[in-house]
Amino acid sequence: MSKVAVIMGSTSDMPVMQKAIDILEGFDIEVEVDIVSAHRTPEKLFDYGKNAHTRGIKVIIAGAGGAAHLPGMIASLSPLPVIGVPVKSSNSIDGWDSVLSILQMPGGVPVATVALDGAMNAGILAAQIIGASDSCILDKILLYKEGLKTKVIKGAEDIRKS
Amino acid sequence: MSKVAVIMGSTSDMPVMQKAIDILEGFDIEVEVDIVSAHRTPEKLFDYGKNAHTRGIKVIIAGAGGAAHLPGMIASLSPLPVIGVPVKSSNSIDGWDSVLSILQMPGGVPVATVALDGAMNAGILAAQIIGASDSCILDKILLYKEGLKTKVIKGAEDIRKS
Amino acid sequence: MSKVAVIMGSTSDMPVMQKAIDILEGFDIEVEVDIVSAHRTPEKLFDYGKNAHTRGIKVIIAGAGGAAHLPGMIASLSPLPVIGVPVKSSNSIDGWDSVLSILQMPGGVPVATVALDGAMNAGILAAQIIGASDSCILDKILLYKEGLKTKVIKGAEDIRKS
Amino acid sequence: MSKVAVIMGSTSDMPVMQKAIDILEGFDIEVEVDIVSAHRTPEKLFDYGKNAHTRGIKVIIAGAGGAAHLPGMIASLSPLPVIGVPVKSSNSIDGWDSVLSILQMPGGVPVATVALDGAMNAGILAAQIIGASDSCILDKILLYKEGLKTKVIKGAEDIRKS
Amino acid sequence: MSKVAVIMGSTSDMPVMQKAIDILEGFDIEVEVDIVSAHRTPEKLFDYGKNAHTRGIKVIIAGAGGAAHLPGMIASLSPLPVIGVPVKSSNSIDGWDSVLSILQMPGGVPVATVALDGAMNAGILAAQIIGASDSCILDKILLYKEGLKTKVIKGAEDIRKS
Amino acid sequence: MSKVAVIMGSTSDMPVMQKAIDILEGFDIEVEVDIVSAHRTPEKLFDYGKNAHTRGIKVIIAGAGGAAHLPGMIASLSPLPVIGVPVKSSNSIDGWDSVLSILQMPGGVPVATVALDGAMNAGILAAQIIGASDSCILDKILLYKEGLKTKVIKGAEDIRKS
Amino acid sequence: MSKVAVIMGSTSDMPVMQKAIDILEGFDIEVEVDIVSAHRTPEKLFDYGKNAHTRGIKVIIAGAGGAAHLPGMIASLSPLPVIGVPVKSSNSIDGWDSVLSILQMPGGVPVATVALDGAMNAGILAAQIIGASDSCILDKILLYKEGLKTKVIKGAEDIRKS
Amino acid sequence: MSKVAVIMGSTSDMPVMQKAIDILEGFDIEVEVDIVSAHRTPEKLFDYGKNAHTRGIKVIIAGAGGAAHLPGMIASLSPLPVIGVPVKSSNSIDGWDSVLSILQMPGGVPVATVALDGAMNAGILAAQIIGASDSCILDKILLYKEGLKTKVIKGAEDIRKS
Repeated sequence: MSKVAVIMGSTSDMPVMQKAIDILEGFDIEVEVDIVSAHRTPEKLFDYGKNAHTRGIKVIIAGAGGAAHLPGMIASLSPLPVIGVPVKSSNSIDGWDSVLSILQMPGGVPVATVALDGAMNAGILAAQIIGASDSCILDKILLYKEGLKTKVIKGAEDIRKS
Repeated sequence: MSKVAVIMGSTSDMPVMQKAIDILEGFDIEVEVDIVSAHRTPEKLFDYGKNAHTRGIKVIIAGAGGAAHLPGMIASLSPLPVIGVPVKSSNSIDGWDSVLSILQMPGGVPVATVALDGAMNAGILAAQIIGASDSCILDKILLYKEGLKTKVIKGAEDIRKS
Repeated sequence: MSKVAVIMGSTSDMPVMQKAIDILEGFDIEVEVDIVSAHRTPEKLFDYGKNAHTRGIKVIIAGAGGAAHLPGMIASLSPLPVIGVPVKSSNSIDGWDSVLSILQMPGGVPVATVALDGAMNAGILAAQIIGASDSCILDKILLYKEGLKTKVIKGAEDIRKS
Repeated sequence: MSKVAVIMGSTSDMPVMQKAIDILEGFDIEVEVDIVSAHRTPEKLFDYGKNAHTRGIKVIIAGAGGAAHLPGMIASLSPLPVIGVPVKSSNSIDGWDSVLSILQMPGGVPVATVALDGAMNAGILAAQIIGASDSCILDKILLYKEGLKTKVIKGAEDIRKS
Repeated sequence: MSKVAVIMGSTSDMPVMQKAIDILEGFDIEVEVDIVSAHRTPEKLFDYGKNAHTRGIKVIIAGAGGAAHLPGMIASLSPLPVIGVPVKSSNSIDGWDSVLSILQMPGGVPVATVALDGAMNAGILAAQIIGASDSCILDKILLYKEGLKTKVIKGAEDIRKS
Repeated sequence: MSKVAVIMGSTSDMPVMQKAIDILEGFDIEVEVDIVSAHRTPEKLFDYGKNAHTRGIKVIIAGAGGAAHLPGMIASLSPLPVIGVPVKSSNSIDGWDSVLSILQMPGGVPVATVALDGAMNAGILAAQIIGASDSCILDKILLYKEGLKTKVIKGAEDIRKS
Repeated sequence: MSKVAVIMGSTSDMPVMQKAIDILEGFDIEVEVDIVSAHRTPEKLFDYGKNAHTRGIKVIIAGAGGAAHLPGMIASLSPLPVIGVPVKSSNSIDGWDSVLSILQMPGGVPVATVALDGAMNAGILAAQIIGASDSCILDKILLYKEGLKTKVIKGAEDIRKS
Repeated sequence: MSKVAVIMGSTSDMPVMQKAIDILEGFDIEVEVDIVSAHRTPEKLFDYGKNAHTRGIKVIIAGAGGAAHLPGMIASLSPLPVIGVPVKSSNSIDGWDSVLSILQMPGGVPVATVALDGAMNAGILAAQIIGASDSCILDKILLYKEGLKTKVIKGAEDIRKS
């Protein structure tokens, strides 16, 4: 069965990254969560990146803030698609450092970057990647999109009534 | 067989987007190329986004510049993973508009954003997404990564000799 | 009679957009309010943009935040003048994403952009657009401008007295 | 007959602003062109802003660069809709000063801002404003939008053939 | 006797601008305070700028926020040195709009710009300008600078003791 | 007789700073030019700042680029008004470093900052400062402003004829 | 014995700079703390920079905010390695001024810049500089790095348990 | 004998990084040059960082552009002081990505960052770090600083003569 890894540089990133976990569990996709710090546990980073694809993981979601090197380094080490979540951590300059140090990867080593603190979208994107070859997940995504629509139309009705 | 769509807002984006096509052809992945302008051909955008997944396309790469709405609108219409390439077009403010209008998607509708003018990485990421469920492509990616390494080590040797 | 549409991407934009509605009601201009999400209700977006000018609407005010595609997509679909209000939503990077993804439209499809969270000015601008061919509204705008002046002069007097 | 004024702070802005004039002439809308410098001819600025609406002008397009005060000061003096074109002049910091000093007008005095160097869109927006009450111009805009579409579809065909 | 004018675009700028008034009163320099809005009272702006130098004013300090046109327009109208104070008003994008629309004046019309919300320094600069030809004020500035020094040295002693 | 000092951090700043010298010579104001590097000749910086006011200098214009400390350090050492010119030197990040390290001085030590590469305006501002107590220079400034006006009006006529 | 100097522009920088002192004391490195304001105590700055290396100081850590000239001026005056800490002071524009006016030093006069408010890292860097020639300190740094690792691994375990 | 390592992410960084090598050779400090790509040769990165301090290297200078992870990852792996040089590579957004992804390191893992393309200063800083415990190098730095001074004073004389 397909598994998605959700890793982050620090336990302080957990409140943001939890949204990715929630989305994936909503799609009944198995999730593996871990703390991997590029700067404080480089050996673990190395092992994690090298081996993730050998134990059934299909997509890696990596969140980090400031000079955020975790997503890019995992992408350097793993052949899997890596989704990067720039986290607006307390030591960040309004999030610009997190965004640019994840997004601006050199040719050869992509990171699929989502919006600042956009862990929810990272979860959906991981589901879409699995859905690309799994029609059951694809159907769930079509259903999820219908749900988004219904909620907006309901909001529009409430405004017209008020 | 898996197909990747490479679309862009204008023929002027072609020199940048060609790098995605080249990478995908290098991985023997079938590519479909088209011009779809969110602002000038909204009906085509609509049809394209609604139907791409019904004809064998697995990933959509969309490139655009300035107030770049093509990647986000395709992501709104399609259940497939959408990779956005911010193009530093002539009417862009140093690329910031292209980057932010693709990256900062609202919750529910992700775009997998790569670096400014990073079409080459968009191609690799699309291959990785297909590789997540196709071990033959996964092996090619592992090989491709070895190639990157060899080239750098060769460069390092040249410098030591000089 | 002339009508102005005030639409927004999410009910959470309502506190900002209400100022446009208030201004227009102060000028006795009929207002139509709706929620139209470019990313979650693309079909509604499409219908709204295509048909607004056929039912008496003269100007469309569209507010959105983050990667804000609503104003530009409505401008793509409608021949009417579209006023864009960049909203500093919670998922925005200090408002820069909202501003740039509305302002930097490509040649051929303008959006009349106002200041960040500048819905009040969007309302006045819509009134001025109607006033361009309606001398009664033009007179009200001249009167409104006199009111702004009086308030500043009153403030200056208060400061001199203190 | 409706007239649109195209004014700019300096003759050096003419190459950018010419695109607004060309668009308006293409729509058979009468154009009045002038140089009005907020900082070097404040008396002319004052007279121009105060009187434009009394001699048949319906919309004012104002272009300026750097600390660009012309659009905002004209908007302060005139009850007409004012379209601001931020010009990336030689003394500008990558255009940010031009954009922000036109866009960020205070409540009460809107300027309809278009993209950096976006004079072409300023011309189209002025036509749309006149079209809001002139069905002949509205029809021309619908036709113009069809033309944009045709050109993109032609470009898409060329790419498929190559 | 020399007089310094302290003007601002809105009564809401008063808390920031008060620091300029306090400094000038500390140097026993006569101060004239007024509200002059470039965008809401253009006639007053015009009269103020044209006539300030004819009634004994030697320096004008002008504070404004957002698309801040007051300092530049006063500099356009008056031959006196104009000091601009960018105010971080509530409608400002982190102060960048205030700073750039005051600082980036075109050749021929300077504004002596101080730091964001730097009204205190505007007051000192006005005193220095008067001190350039008034040795009594110059002496007071030398004394003021000694006071700054004493305070820092006192702080350094406190830290060493703690 | 009043003298203005024009100093800069490096001979490479001379092409920009020459415009200040030209303006001052046009106003028949005596100019003293020197190279004073805050980072490479700190002793000279110290002497220059401490003594300038004792030998007839009334205003100091200081230009520098990158982490530009010359204007602020001179303002720290001298009681005279100091005008800072941010130079867009080759090692600058688009001029932002030059602007911010001159503009954002702490309370107590103002620098009168002009636009990026705005040495011409620095010269005019120095003349205005001297003109604040010298009616002959004030008259020349009024005349200079008339000259600016005439040139714009001439440009406007040329455009109307073409 | 090796000594590290920790200086700052104002007592208000103390809460940030204390983290450097704590780190150094944790490494049993002697610390000298002082307030040295580039703008308010230039003579003290001069003496401090000229003489620090003559009394056993090996590294200088200098923190300052806004137009932060202290680190660069100390680097100008001293032959010692200078570590600059950009402080996000209350008068700073989101920290950008502090960062750029410390980082962007001209060729010849380096400042080793750390992250915004990164005084903790300044302390570690100073220890590493001493450790470059002191194997006892080098061992302590290796131990410190092990401590960082242990803490992350402990955090990862806690997350897996929850 | 002390050795300094100069490493970079790509041979294309060599023209910038050569300036560090030249400076160090001018100080008669032994230099070791290598290409180490964080993203393309992660195993080499790992070995290099882990072992550099065991073979006589005292300081590591690391240059990289875009999402520049080399300096931070080396700092993660090595106990030595690491100097980071942000390179304005062709795929960089005006250098901001290079600067922020090197500068904004998290607490515990410092990188001594120099100016954009500031490899010359990286060389001087490395010399100063060695000079902190090597009085012969310290004397050379004092001499080097005298040389900077002489050159500026010579430039000042040339300007006075012209």
